[in-house]
Parts: sequence; structure tokens; C-alpha cells
Amino acid sequence: MGEFELIHHYFAAAACARGGEGVALGIGDDCALLQLPAGEQLAVSTDTLVVGVHFPHAADPYLLGQRALAVSASDLAAMGATPIGFTLALTLPDAQPEWLQAFARGLDKMAAQCALSLIGGDTTRGPLSLTLTVFGRVPSGQALLRSGAQAGDLLCVGGNLGNAAGALALVLEQQQAEPAVSQPLLEHYWSPQPQLALGQALRGKASAALDISDGLLADCGHIAKASGVSLLIEQQRLPLSTALLQLSGEAGALRCALSGGDDYVLAFTMAEQHLPALREAGHSVHVIGRVVSGQGVQLLDKHGAQVALPAQGYQHFGSTGD
Amino acid sequence: MGEFELIHHYFAAAACARGGEGVALGIGDDCALLQLPAGEQLAVSTDTLVVGVHFPHAADPYLLGQRALAVSASDLAAMGATPIGFTLALTLPDAQPEWLQAFARGLDKMAAQCALSLIGGDTTRGPLSLTLTVFGRVPSGQALLRSGAQAGDLLCVGGNLGNAAGALALVLEQQQAEPAVSQPLLEHYWSPQPQLALGQALRGKASAALDISDGLLADCGHIAKASGVSLLIEQQRLPLSTALLQLSGEAGALRCALSGGDDYVLAFTMAEQHLPALREAGHSVHVIGRVVSGQGVQLLDKHGAQVALPAQGYQHFGSTGD
Repeated sequence: MGEFELIHHYFAAAACARGGEGVALGIGDDCALLQLPAGEQLAVSTDTLVVGVHFPHAADPYLLGQRALAVSASDLAAMGATPIGFTLALTLPDAQPEWLQAFARGLDKMAAQCALSLIGGDTTRGPLSLTLTVFGRVPSGQALLRSGAQAGDLLCVGGNLGNAAGALALVLEQQQAEPAVSQPLLEHYWSPQPQLALGQALRGKASAALDISDGLLADCGHIAKASGVSLLIEQQRLPLSTALLQLSGEAGALRCALSGGDDYVLAFTMAEQHLPALREAGHSVHVIGRVVSGQGVQLLDKHGAQVALPAQGYQHFGSTGD
Repeated sequence: MGEFELIHHYFAAAACARGGEGVALGIGDDCALLQLPAGEQLAVSTDTLVVGVHFPHAADPYLLGQRALAVSASDLAAMGATPIGFTLALTLPDAQPEWLQAFARGLDKMAAQCALSLIGGDTTRGPLSLTLTVFGRVPSGQALLRSGAQAGDLLCVGGNLGNAAGALALVLEQQQAEPAVSQPLLEHYWSPQPQLALGQALRGKASAALDISDGLLADCGHIAKASGVSLLIEQQRLPLSTALLQLSGEAGALRCALSGGDDYVLAFTMAEQHLPALREAGHSVHVIGRVVSGQGVQLLDKHGAQVALPAQGYQHFGSTGD
């Protein structure tokens, strides 16, 4: 079976089923063609997942397919973009039909959930890795950047923090837990929910936004640096799940929330006046701190006293973070 | 040094220097933002190159940088698109400054030549591989597809065929040759010239087009299948370089031209009436056959008799081609 047939065969569902708004030409030619409504910009993001680095060799291909696309779609959420499509560059040591079928099913499930069409890709032989490039659209000038946070804004997150870091110990089988604890954490790890609706709702409201992939402290550092401000995080306001507290205890859960990566929950800054409308619309918004003049990130205990920062999130090729 | 700093440091030239027409936001946020003029579509293509599969372990990083981007930009040429930018997903076993610097210089040289800006990417640890996604723009409805070839059209190519396949034997050190022979072939292999100007000139003229990556026969098969026609290739009209003829002899050169991949020369079908204007504008156009009703690809000798087709170009995970 040739390269194109392989892609067509296993990924047909993800390629066709989405309706393809914005996709003028999908898989099968030298390029795909995307069409944007007047007054909109295209948001683009690329992420690579490598076996043994970003997921274990024994990873369930169905879960891997889900997670790979969710991780990339989360970047669209962070810009407030409406999903259009994605390309998949899949490098595989060999073509195992069962593996491909399960991977494609997981990918398709997340594609359907995010309203993303598979528009193209490449299949190559080599050590297992995946590079996904996602495309979305956003009205010109309304994309959520990292650079607009202003002193006086609230610092918010879109959901519980630290679940993925907690789950990682279960994924790597360093820790065990009863199903009531392990299941919700593993589900969060393997099937993170890109906060696309929240991202779109934040257009015109959030002054800065990103999705938490490197860990709360590291990612807040990105906003602080890009915006030229200081972010104060009130430790006791961090939303922690019951499952994580049961697995890791309070101190461990806090460590996961502050420094663990892969949560793919939005962190954003916003004037307080926008809070009621978001909550009325049913969006999950947790205020965890505020923006002040200065630079960097500061962590405060329940008395408002500054706490020493723990080690920051995972960084490739380095240890200092950005 | 963190991931972002690594990318910024080595790839700054490719990221900034291009002027960035069409790029509203480049590297550094969750997504890049592209802006299209009204009435234009975005062309997107993704290609992966894996060490040991698409290039040797000892490949010169400067040449690899050039070649990786040229291979992807060639897909934009094949659609008749005007280049905008690209993302680079770079997986590396370790961060060697000399390697990264040389790779970035080669990438930047080709980026400047193709007027492509680096707009984003990802750097991960793992076995060496590169996934590039390129973006271009094309007036709506004018992209060159594979599906429009019509009986009566000419079959043309944009330059000499088989040079890359000839060079591969030199790259793999299976063959040696004097510099006058090896240099032009190796240059073609490591620094293919995406035929962007020709592609743009073919808008509104070519009925079908692609770039030759799998080999002439295999790629003509793609046009024949997508268009529902038969392509007749006249063997004695295939343009062959002096260097390839000297390296491989006539029979060997012909084999390279028919079945070798990686030429990244355009193949296209077109009504004869467009030929003079293209040649007057200085474009290299070689007529190598014609389109007839039927299906598949047929090879004719100098007497017009049908010749048996040799084995087709390289295919991942398969042997039959598309």
C-alpha cells in the first residue's frame, strides 16, 4: 500500500467527516488550500511528540491519538481561535494495521470534538514521533496574545491545575491508586480538553492568555515577560482536584499545580469587570491572583507573604526555563 | 538555555529578515498569525525528513537546512503559490551549537531565496528528524491541482530529470566521479531550486501540475489518476544533464529520470497555445509527451512504440506506488 493510500485508508474519517468549513482542498494534492472569511487571520501552531520523551513506548495508540491532537488544539484555544484543520506528520518504525487503526480512531474522536479536519500530512519510516500543525481563524486584531497583561488585571485559570503532573506518576507506573483516584487523573492526561469555547469567549476580554503546558509558574513567567509586568499568584486560590489531593496530598498537589506541565488549561489576565459575564455564560474561571507593575512571578501564601519559588517546569535542552 | 531562546538564538535570521509580508505575528506566542489578501487562499504542505531514511547520519547540517526547506517550498511551487512562511519542528538528540548554527545558516539561505519567513516551530529531544510546514498564497480558484489534465494537452517538465537520483549514489558513496561531474549533481541534490516563479507563471495556463518527488513515472501516475486521463511519455524527449549522462551512461540516466525521486522539478499539463508565452518569459519548459484519453502512464520509444515500464519510485511502507 502506497503512502497516500495508507493515509487515506486509516485517516479517512478525520479527513472527511468534519464538514470542512474553511477547507477549500483537503488531502491528496501537493498542498491543502484554506479559505478565510474577510477580516479574519489564520492562527498556526506546530507541536512534536516523541516516543520515550513525550509519551511511553507502550502508550495506547487510541489515547495517544486523542492526546496528540488535544495538545495542539489547546494552542488554538489559547489564541481564542476557531478551529479549522490540522496536518499530521507521522513517523513510524513500521506500519502495523492495528496500531494505525486505533491511533486514527483516537485522533478522529478528538478531531470531531474540536471540529478540526485532517487536511494533509506526511507518513515516513523512522522512530515513532508525531508532528501536528493546527489551523484556526480569529477576527483580525482579536487574537489573545501573551503581551497585553496590565497592572490591575486579575490572573485567572480555566480549570483545575496539576492533574496531568499527578497522572504522570501513574502513567510511568511510579505510583498506584484506586480507580476512583486514578481514572479522572489518567483521563485528564490522555484526553485533555482544549478550552476552545473559553478561548473564543475571552476575545475582547482577556488582556493576555496562553495554555499551561510548561507549568503554571513557567507559563505565568511567559506572560509576565511578554507583557512587562509582574504576576502575583495566591497559593491558596489554586484550584486542585479531589483526585489529585488524594493521590499526592496537599503539598504534593500544590507542587504539581505550580511546576507540573501538560495541564492544557488556559491561564489569562483580564479586567475584573468581565468576570460576571463569563461566569453567567457557564465558563469555568478561577481567579488565582493579580497583575502588578514590576517583573516576574511572585507566589504568596495565605497571609499574603512571599513564598520561595519551587523549581520550574520541564524544558527541552535546558534546566533554567524561559 | 530554554526552548524558545534556543529557537530564537539560532533561527533569528530566518525569522525576521524576510520582511514578513502576510505574517501578522511570528515566533513567540501560542500560535503565529497569518493574514491573506482578499480573494486569496492559503496553500499548506507538510514534509518530514528522518535521519537514516531521507538523509545520511553524516549529512552536512548547512546542506541539510537548505535541502529540507527546498523540498517543502517545492510543494508551494507545484500549486502556483506565492511563499509566505514556514514552521520548523526540529527533533535533535542533543543541542550542539555548531550543528545548529550551520543548519540555521543553510535554512536561512534557502528561506531568503524563497522569500519564506520562519513563523514558528517546536524543538524536541529525540532521534534527528525535521518536519517543515510551508505556507503560501494563491488567488482563489487559481491553484494548480493534479486533477485538471485534459486529452490534447502537452505534458511538460520544468528542467532536467534524474539528477537527484544520480547524485544519491555519490551521497551514499556507492559511486565516485571527478568534480566536473559530481559537483553539479551534488548541488542539485543538496540545494534543489523550487520552481516558484514557473509555478506562479503557470496559473491560468497549466491544467494540472505537481513537483516530481516520487519519480517521473509515479508522479505522472498521480496526475493521470486524479485527472482520469492517460499520459504518454516520449522517452527520447526527457531532458538529461551532461553530468548525469557522464556519471550513469544513457541507460542509467534514463532509469534515474523515470524512476528516481527527489528532483523537485515541476511536471505539468497545458494546452499548446501557452507554450510560446512561457518560453518568451524565460521559463524553462520541456515538452516530454502528451495527454490522451484512457488511464495510467505509457512510455514510448523513439519510434512511438510502447516500452515496458520500469519499477516505480520509492514509497514508504509499500512497494506498489500510488
